[in-house]
Amino acid sequence: MHSFIHSVCALFLLFLLCQPAQAGDNPDADRQAVVLAAFGTTVPKALPGILNIRDRLQRQYPQTPVKIAFTSNIIRRIWQGRRGDAAFITANPSVPADVYTVQGPLATIANLQDQGYRTIIVQPGHISAGEEYLDLVAAIDGLNSIRTIKPKFRPFEKLAVGRPAMGTAGEQHPYSEDLALIARALADDAVQAEKANAALLYMAHGNTYMPSGSAYLEFASIMNRLYPQVKTYIALVEGYPSLDDTLPLLEHAGVSKLLLKPFMTVAGDHTVNDMAGDEPEAWKSILSAKGYEVMTVAKGLGEIDAFADVYLHHLQQTATDHGIVLH
Amino acid sequence: MHSFIHSVCALFLLFLLCQPAQAGDNPDADRQAVVLAAFGTTVPKALPGILNIRDRLQRQYPQTPVKIAFTSNIIRRIWQGRRGDAAFITANPSVPADVYTVQGPLATIANLQDQGYRTIIVQPGHISAGEEYLDLVAAIDGLNSIRTIKPKFRPFEKLAVGRPAMGTAGEQHPYSEDLALIARALADDAVQAEKANAALLYMAHGNTYMPSGSAYLEFASIMNRLYPQVKTYIALVEGYPSLDDTLPLLEHAGVSKLLLKPFMTVAGDHTVNDMAGDEPEAWKSILSAKGYEVMTVAKGLGEIDAFADVYLHHLQQTATDHGIVLH
Amino acid sequence: MHSFIHSVCALFLLFLLCQPAQAGDNPDADRQAVVLAAFGTTVPKALPGILNIRDRLQRQYPQTPVKIAFTSNIIRRIWQGRRGDAAFITANPSVPADVYTVQGPLATIANLQDQGYRTIIVQPGHISAGEEYLDLVAAIDGLNSIRTIKPKFRPFEKLAVGRPAMGTAGEQHPYSEDLALIARALADDAVQAEKANAALLYMAHGNTYMPSGSAYLEFASIMNRLYPQVKTYIALVEGYPSLDDTLPLLEHAGVSKLLLKPFMTVAGDHTVNDMAGDEPEAWKSILSAKGYEVMTVAKGLGEIDAFADVYLHHLQQTATDHGIVLH
Amino acid sequence: MHSFIHSVCALFLLFLLCQPAQAGDNPDADRQAVVLAAFGTTVPKALPGILNIRDRLQRQYPQTPVKIAFTSNIIRRIWQGRRGDAAFITANPSVPADVYTVQGPLATIANLQDQGYRTIIVQPGHISAGEEYLDLVAAIDGLNSIRTIKPKFRPFEKLAVGRPAMGTAGEQHPYSEDLALIARALADDAVQAEKANAALLYMAHGNTYMPSGSAYLEFASIMNRLYPQVKTYIALVEGYPSLDDTLPLLEHAGVSKLLLKPFMTVAGDHTVNDMAGDEPEAWKSILSAKGYEVMTVAKGLGEIDAFADVYLHHLQQTATDHGIVLH
Repeated sequence: MHSFIHSVCALFLLFLLCQPAQAGDNPDADRQAVVLAAFGTTVPKALPGILNIRDRLQRQYPQTPVKIAFTSNIIRRIWQGRRGDAAFITANPSVPADVYTVQGPLATIANLQDQGYRTIIVQPGHISAGEEYLDLVAAIDGLNSIRTIKPKFRPFEKLAVGRPAMGTAGEQHPYSEDLALIARALADDAVQAEKANAALLYMAHGNTYMPSGSAYLEFASIMNRLYPQVKTYIALVEGYPSLDDTLPLLEHAGVSKLLLKPFMTVAGDHTVNDMAGDEPEAWKSILSAKGYEVMTVAKGLGEIDAFADVYLHHLQQTATDHGIVLH
Repeated sequence: MHSFIHSVCALFLLFLLCQPAQAGDNPDADRQAVVLAAFGTTVPKALPGILNIRDRLQRQYPQTPVKIAFTSNIIRRIWQGRRGDAAFITANPSVPADVYTVQGPLATIANLQDQGYRTIIVQPGHISAGEEYLDLVAAIDGLNSIRTIKPKFRPFEKLAVGRPAMGTAGEQHPYSEDLALIARALADDAVQAEKANAALLYMAHGNTYMPSGSAYLEFASIMNRLYPQVKTYIALVEGYPSLDDTLPLLEHAGVSKLLLKPFMTVAGDHTVNDMAGDEPEAWKSILSAKGYEVMTVAKGLGEIDAFADVYLHHLQQTATDHGIVLH
Repeated sequence: MHSFIHSVCALFLLFLLCQPAQAGDNPDADRQAVVLAAFGTTVPKALPGILNIRDRLQRQYPQTPVKIAFTSNIIRRIWQGRRGDAAFITANPSVPADVYTVQGPLATIANLQDQGYRTIIVQPGHISAGEEYLDLVAAIDGLNSIRTIKPKFRPFEKLAVGRPAMGTAGEQHPYSEDLALIARALADDAVQAEKANAALLYMAHGNTYMPSGSAYLEFASIMNRLYPQVKTYIALVEGYPSLDDTLPLLEHAGVSKLLLKPFMTVAGDHTVNDMAGDEPEAWKSILSAKGYEVMTVAKGLGEIDAFADVYLHHLQQTATDHGIVLH
Repeated sequence: MHSFIHSVCALFLLFLLCQPAQAGDNPDADRQAVVLAAFGTTVPKALPGILNIRDRLQRQYPQTPVKIAFTSNIIRRIWQGRRGDAAFITANPSVPADVYTVQGPLATIANLQDQGYRTIIVQPGHISAGEEYLDLVAAIDGLNSIRTIKPKFRPFEKLAVGRPAMGTAGEQHPYSEDLALIARALADDAVQAEKANAALLYMAHGNTYMPSGSAYLEFASIMNRLYPQVKTYIALVEGYPSLDDTLPLLEHAGVSKLLLKPFMTVAGDHTVNDMAGDEPEAWKSILSAKGYEVMTVAKGLGEIDAFADVYLHHLQQTATDHGIVLH
């Protein structure tokens, strides 16, 4: 045990020496950073749903570090466990190093602050203003409530939070405009469904413990107005409207063929198992059993550049709202 | 540049592999930690003023990680700069690795939380309930104000803050009892002064922008009551009562010899330069010029076990107050 | 002017003398009160939608004052204006005195606190967890965040807030159970519609700036499951789903006759004008013009005892959750 | 009982009719108000210590209502009890009506807000930044933390708090400058003491549970610098330095005659009993027993115009700091 600690320590000192004295360079500069706070995923091949958004934000602001954070405790814990798992690391060369060390928003923000980044915008990578987003806002409100005797010692110059893809409550940026933005970004889905002569059915997440379906249903109604040639439906894994709530509508409308897609940034566990899995309770199985012809596309919304840029759009507005100029 | 990044990455992966999958072991356990949040010091040989407190807390609770945090931004930045300074590292083998990577309380707490420590007691290493302590409390209040939709997702199970050595406002633990505790812990100072036939003069820090002298003066009055054989005085680097305010008292009392000591946890920059330095504005110089015989002791209060244990005492009461059992 | 002031002062002293020295009687008792915080209405004959709820809460807890508060600034201002309007007061003998002096929740709570009521439950009289409810919670959170040096001087012993009729986010009291409770309380609506061989269409309020339709749609779906003999629809004055969004569904389902009712606690301005008015943009007019036979019932939900008792139910749970025993 | 209620109701309606429809006149105007939040006093003849400050603030800003609030629960309760006490009211014609109905800061602020005053400055009438002031700030911070979905519905446009006479922590308005301001305002005390060939001894309040003596001692040291012809001392009713702590200093300095004055805004209970009373534990008795010739002046600091204007000065700075223009 002692020799293990010793070798870790030696490695650590080596690591110390290799580190540039980053924040020491210009301690007075007001450093700016962006945190992309997504739910996260444990599925390596679903990571692009997050990383593509990160890359597009980073490309837009090359001088501003864009750090990812995962809001799910369970998912972070799994990645923490994989840090020491040589077999996993070797088998998944596409996983970037910062996924292994990813932290929650609180630690990510606090570490940036500790390095001298006192102006931080947290851009949620969430789809809707649901539980995860509200909890994220609560964390940021808590950090923003910190007052100090001398204003110059406040931990943050500006700590702002953007809004999820589907927007949030308030007059400044009506959520319905965000829904329209998404509907335009997903034009290809309508094209694809039309080509296949299919209705479009999205699987969104939802929440059993807070009414969340409204924005989804309103989004579907905008899709139907924008792309009347295709019937668009949306149902939730949790909460109302469920697939059960939606089946009568499909039947009533005489749908026979379905293009089934995840309405989630990443095509992770829900997509692989709950949507497109072979188990009888997977949506594909249920719909097939009902006689529908089902095509599934296991691609997270974040992998679609036009959708990823909805987050960029929101980030830019948040920066403007707070008088922050990102570079 | 690229090859440098490459080698850092390789090193990083190596580092990942060496790390135990710490928080993954037992994700459901409610882990407990202690953070000792001191102002910090840049003087390597003054570090024991903090590290001795840390070690004594750690010895008492061997199963609970006790992490240090430095509240001074400037001091942290200097240690960050030394991380990559091989000459410094080699020249100062006594500096433990966790001083090089020390963070502020916010990041230290957030990183512990991210690793699954959801019950954390922050024990201030400060002497008095001054600006630094109040700012620390503000940070912890901010973190404690975070509410989540589901209570189980609150970031902390319990996040508590202890009080500085000299106590804080409130009825539960009257600060005057803490002053008496300190006075008893510093019995040796009185013994030493008596042996030398000297008066005892402490240099405390103080603050120009908030009235802070009261607790110090009350402490001196307790010392005088407890050790009537020695005259004890205290003056502040910043604010009232200054050395200038105190000189008439020394003169009036017919003092001729002084035992001059820092009333600070660490014998850092203030002790080395402002108190015992050779510059004309150092207290030693001023007092010598006035004809006093001056003996200086450059030892931080934290290096005195009995004083360090005042923090242990406060930590234990804070744990009890919050229903936390440390191990 | 002076003589006017003089007479007001004389009246005031008379008033002082008539007042029982209420809080002086037993200053140490921890007094308890309930505040019913409704949006409010300016329509005198719609007041029973609020007053009936108040009366039923008061009857249940005769020893606890139940005060009404109106959250709408505009509505309060109108009632303030009517205080000096003798013609109005005489013409509306049914309006109780406490409506003329009604205040917002903040002042109502603060005045109770000032009179020695330090345990207060605020029961929202709102239908859904929309903007008004969230703003109310924000006010109460602000009051609850007040800490004092000595705990005994905290303004409130316990200040708790109940949930709106349709519930709120969280696991403790799933909102879907609240929806079911309402659906059962409105059994008579289904009976009435069935007798008339009509579909049931509720007009709810909604909000253009936050997605709110989901809980309403889920409620309608529960009604349809509970009372399958009647088709139940719900549409919003503001936001999705609007009447326009709902018309295709009515048409599709072959509805010809409608029982149109407000899904609001009071049958105020929206009911009188927007729902049942004669203007062409009133729902009744629109629906009639489309060929539907429309029956309107201008009765606020709060006037229905079974619905009013949903608030009593929520109040009781809130009391229990906070360890408060109301009498 | 019923007939009593009936007559109270009749009186109430009469009262309603007499009230101008104040806030209804111009609902959109952003009304401004000032609250003078003092500890309060139960002694009628001590009231001018508060009312004089109020009057001077009011005279400066004739268009802005200046309301008094008492922070002491016990004192408010006593005045509440006197409302119905005809004998007391008749016997004390100098007590203005608003003292009988005085409320705590929370209710006073909330009632102003309810009447449409959305820009409010709370000027503490306290001497020092002690417990009462910190609790007041906590209440205002709580109210200021209230956020609403639409910014226009935030309860306050601006809710600011001034500082006590002796200032507060922070760089913006160094408390030591406030101490100097007070010392200049109390020039007459020095003149009076000099004429009488006496030392000046102030009785201040202090607090057993938070170190508060420092600002008082620093104030005394400023007095001694400004008026070297008079020795000025200050001691506290509660906490360090007590009269006992101060007696040796008086003795040491060869003082024989004392001008004893309250260092409190009102010359209330502490002045009447603890300072100038005939009981053996009154300071006058103790000092007389020790052989000092004692002259007492039972006048609150607030009755001295120059001192009252320290609050006006602070109010003006607070207004400027918050971009508020008072009229």
